[in-house]
Amino acid sequence: MKAINFTVEELATIMEPIGRRGAYAGPIMGIAALDHAQAGDLSFLGNQKYRSQVAQTKASVVLVPSDYEGEPLPNQLHLVVENPSASLARVCARIEAKLWPRPAPGVHPSAVIGEGADIAPTATIGPLCVIEAGATVGDNSHLQAQVFVGQNARIGRDCWLMPGVTVGAECILHDRVRLHAGVVVGSDGFGYEFVGGRYEKVPQIGIVIIGDDVEIGANSTLDRARFSRTVIGEGTKIDNLVQVAHNVIIGRHCVLCAQVGISGSAVLEDFVILGGQAGVAGHITVGKGVKSGARAGITSDIEPGAFVHGYPAIPYMLERRLQVLQRRLPELFKRVSALEDKA
Amino acid sequence: MKAINFTVEELATIMEPIGRRGAYAGPIMGIAALDHAQAGDLSFLGNQKYRSQVAQTKASVVLVPSDYEGEPLPNQLHLVVENPSASLARVCARIEAKLWPRPAPGVHPSAVIGEGADIAPTATIGPLCVIEAGATVGDNSHLQAQVFVGQNARIGRDCWLMPGVTVGAECILHDRVRLHAGVVVGSDGFGYEFVGGRYEKVPQIGIVIIGDDVEIGANSTLDRARFSRTVIGEGTKIDNLVQVAHNVIIGRHCVLCAQVGISGSAVLEDFVILGGQAGVAGHITVGKGVKSGARAGITSDIEPGAFVHGYPAIPYMLERRLQVLQRRLPELFKRVSALEDKA
Amino acid sequence: MKAINFTVEELATIMEPIGRRGAYAGPIMGIAALDHAQAGDLSFLGNQKYRSQVAQTKASVVLVPSDYEGEPLPNQLHLVVENPSASLARVCARIEAKLWPRPAPGVHPSAVIGEGADIAPTATIGPLCVIEAGATVGDNSHLQAQVFVGQNARIGRDCWLMPGVTVGAECILHDRVRLHAGVVVGSDGFGYEFVGGRYEKVPQIGIVIIGDDVEIGANSTLDRARFSRTVIGEGTKIDNLVQVAHNVIIGRHCVLCAQVGISGSAVLEDFVILGGQAGVAGHITVGKGVKSGARAGITSDIEPGAFVHGYPAIPYMLERRLQVLQRRLPELFKRVSALEDKA
Repeated sequence: MKAINFTVEELATIMEPIGRRGAYAGPIMGIAALDHAQAGDLSFLGNQKYRSQVAQTKASVVLVPSDYEGEPLPNQLHLVVENPSASLARVCARIEAKLWPRPAPGVHPSAVIGEGADIAPTATIGPLCVIEAGATVGDNSHLQAQVFVGQNARIGRDCWLMPGVTVGAECILHDRVRLHAGVVVGSDGFGYEFVGGRYEKVPQIGIVIIGDDVEIGANSTLDRARFSRTVIGEGTKIDNLVQVAHNVIIGRHCVLCAQVGISGSAVLEDFVILGGQAGVAGHITVGKGVKSGARAGITSDIEPGAFVHGYPAIPYMLERRLQVLQRRLPELFKRVSALEDKA
Repeated sequence: MKAINFTVEELATIMEPIGRRGAYAGPIMGIAALDHAQAGDLSFLGNQKYRSQVAQTKASVVLVPSDYEGEPLPNQLHLVVENPSASLARVCARIEAKLWPRPAPGVHPSAVIGEGADIAPTATIGPLCVIEAGATVGDNSHLQAQVFVGQNARIGRDCWLMPGVTVGAECILHDRVRLHAGVVVGSDGFGYEFVGGRYEKVPQIGIVIIGDDVEIGANSTLDRARFSRTVIGEGTKIDNLVQVAHNVIIGRHCVLCAQVGISGSAVLEDFVILGGQAGVAGHITVGKGVKSGARAGITSDIEPGAFVHGYPAIPYMLERRLQVLQRRLPELFKRVSALEDKA
Repeated sequence: MKAINFTVEELATIMEPIGRRGAYAGPIMGIAALDHAQAGDLSFLGNQKYRSQVAQTKASVVLVPSDYEGEPLPNQLHLVVENPSASLARVCARIEAKLWPRPAPGVHPSAVIGEGADIAPTATIGPLCVIEAGATVGDNSHLQAQVFVGQNARIGRDCWLMPGVTVGAECILHDRVRLHAGVVVGSDGFGYEFVGGRYEKVPQIGIVIIGDDVEIGANSTLDRARFSRTVIGEGTKIDNLVQVAHNVIIGRHCVLCAQVGISGSAVLEDFVILGGQAGVAGHITVGKGVKSGARAGITSDIEPGAFVHGYPAIPYMLERRLQVLQRRLPELFKRVSALEDKA
């Protein structure tokens, strides 16, 4: 956090506020939630739930939306911005770049580079990486340390592969892809035939293609297709410990929370959001913009735009109603007994 | 996919078809499902569900079972085989061997080999592997890159350990074991005693034994026994992100889908199949040939051959019936109210 | 297991028994459960469930609690101890230290050490580790192999980081922390703003702090805070494949079983125990000493001391009762039909 040291004017340059109320002259040395902030901190109203905390916060600078009209305390500045969370993200990105600047381009002498691998001169290949024959790494991409890139795999521009990432042979990452530590791209799909009393492996000779601006969380696994492709669409964000099986097609700008599992050949259309620990059965289609609650188990096609919960997943309002009635089962049994006594 | 280029006669040599209908003279350049195939592709009828698609497919060669009697289109060949999926697997295995031939035997100069490690001359130890003292690696086994093998561990013949695999000290892999990237074999079992207000570790000094022809998916974890052994039986297949706790005994030819968790000292007899995200409680026995639905939570012994669903897992037909009745709870509440009104 | 070879007097020195019955003069060569033990084995009565097995066991030495009064067989010794499991753990710890002695201090020549990294002379840095600039490693700590420690991260004393562990930049491990293979500490929290039809990343610039005596299982992932800290309290034990999201605060001496997921900004107070595959929603508080069943889904604040089950998690006795009534739904539907027929 040592990297945080901004003047108010530096903040204003980053965020281009549409209004200001009050004043603060000192430096900004930290970032904190409204109720934890101290003098010298930057805070923000990102969720209407916390609206009442703005008046009490000790933060020196507060990012507020245009519909917030409260007055700042003495020696406190309100910067009015369109989207306080997004503005804060821009500040954080600045801090991140200060904290963790990409190291100088070049290949660390301890890395092992296969024959005919094509590494852009502006890329950084960190210590103890292995890049097999025929693989390519694009401009400004950063393989941090102990990364493995299999033969003929292609890493685009401005990617960041963190320690211990594995990208299997022939797989393709487009640009600005960020893979956190331990991600595995291109493990074999789980396919066998039961022949003569034992399972024979069905070789998995397809690939994984990952679109622009995809980010994948630590230790998540994405299987290569049986043949053809497993696809992660542009802008999709995947959390930690998520499983994506072979031949899955995930659309653009989807969000998969931690520990989600997607079975083979399932299709997620664009803008799907799946809560943590949810699961999707194989060979089904989850329509555009579908949202699921945490732990939902989606077992059949879901219409675009639906909001589903439970296992098997059903529309949220129905699931909620059934849940309420389930809680009332003891009462129902008593009511039926009473009726029987009268009858 | 560049590796795919077969003549019809090459295919026939691999598959030994029991019959042929129609003819195709060109090369086979790809593999695809019936409804996606194009001219030049090989396709197959592996599931009766897709039977009607055979007549419409554009594939140039189609593998069909002996009970399929439809006629091919012009310039299309039907190869009649006993099991189209198994035949396709044999073709894919050929393609896999072309795509990813095992590298030449030998130890990469960047690997770190401990004292007294015994590595077969026909084995391949890839870059940046660590093999500790006293470990052995058998004939033709391939440690791809950045693999760790702990002291006195034994890797059998014809094994393939992919990047970032860890095999802990003293653990034993038999022959033809395939571990995908990031698999951990031999992490400590999760055992503590609560003594004096805090948890004291119970050291885990047993091992893991993995039978012949076992395959384990990316980032799965298998704990060593408290003492004695955690066992994975011959031919068992485990998908990605699966957890196998200490002292678990898994039989032969079981199938554990992704994100399954098996608690300590549970026993799975032979031919058990567990759906994705299922869980098994500790110290129970799942009988031979049991199948569970995805997400089943097995909390007590299950009789051999049962098919269970739900949490706690119960026989499928019962679980299904209860589910239907749960959906009818709103109706039931109304019916009871109506009876009360009349009474 | 070759390391096991104790005389009865050596065992007595380790365990300081409060009583003895019978006698055994030979060496102890193994450890086994009561019903599997053979002559030469040490066994123990750790769970009242197995009380009747003591009289039949073939073990040569049996650890029994003070309230066990049965007599040993000929050539068999009962050592009376306060807590047989804890005593066994002390023996196992001795075996563990014999089996896997910490290697000599020093930095392996294949490790890559960044500028200004501060490594205690008593620490052991194994082969192919990467320690970035400014990181510190304390006395007697052991980074086994292929470990990554990011810039300015701090590893305390007597820690053990197993193969393939990643500790991200700026993160802090206190003393005696044990991280199993593949653990990721300090991956980015999962935070985005939806702006202009796509997700903008919210940089995650906080850290993870791990207290004394914490142990974390293989391939578990712990995200760094958005800003400020993700905290794991002293003495907490975390199993394999567990996900801890950004800004989570976990108290002291908690137990998280395998495949648990904790959503962002959740708080677990001290002594919480979560069963396998359980989940905790974001921004809620789980009170001191709460226990949850396996697969519980905790969606709202839980009072200290509660024992909860199910999803959404409710008190165990209530959940159990509802489960029983759900099983009786077929009967209830029939009873209502019978009433309707009469009415």
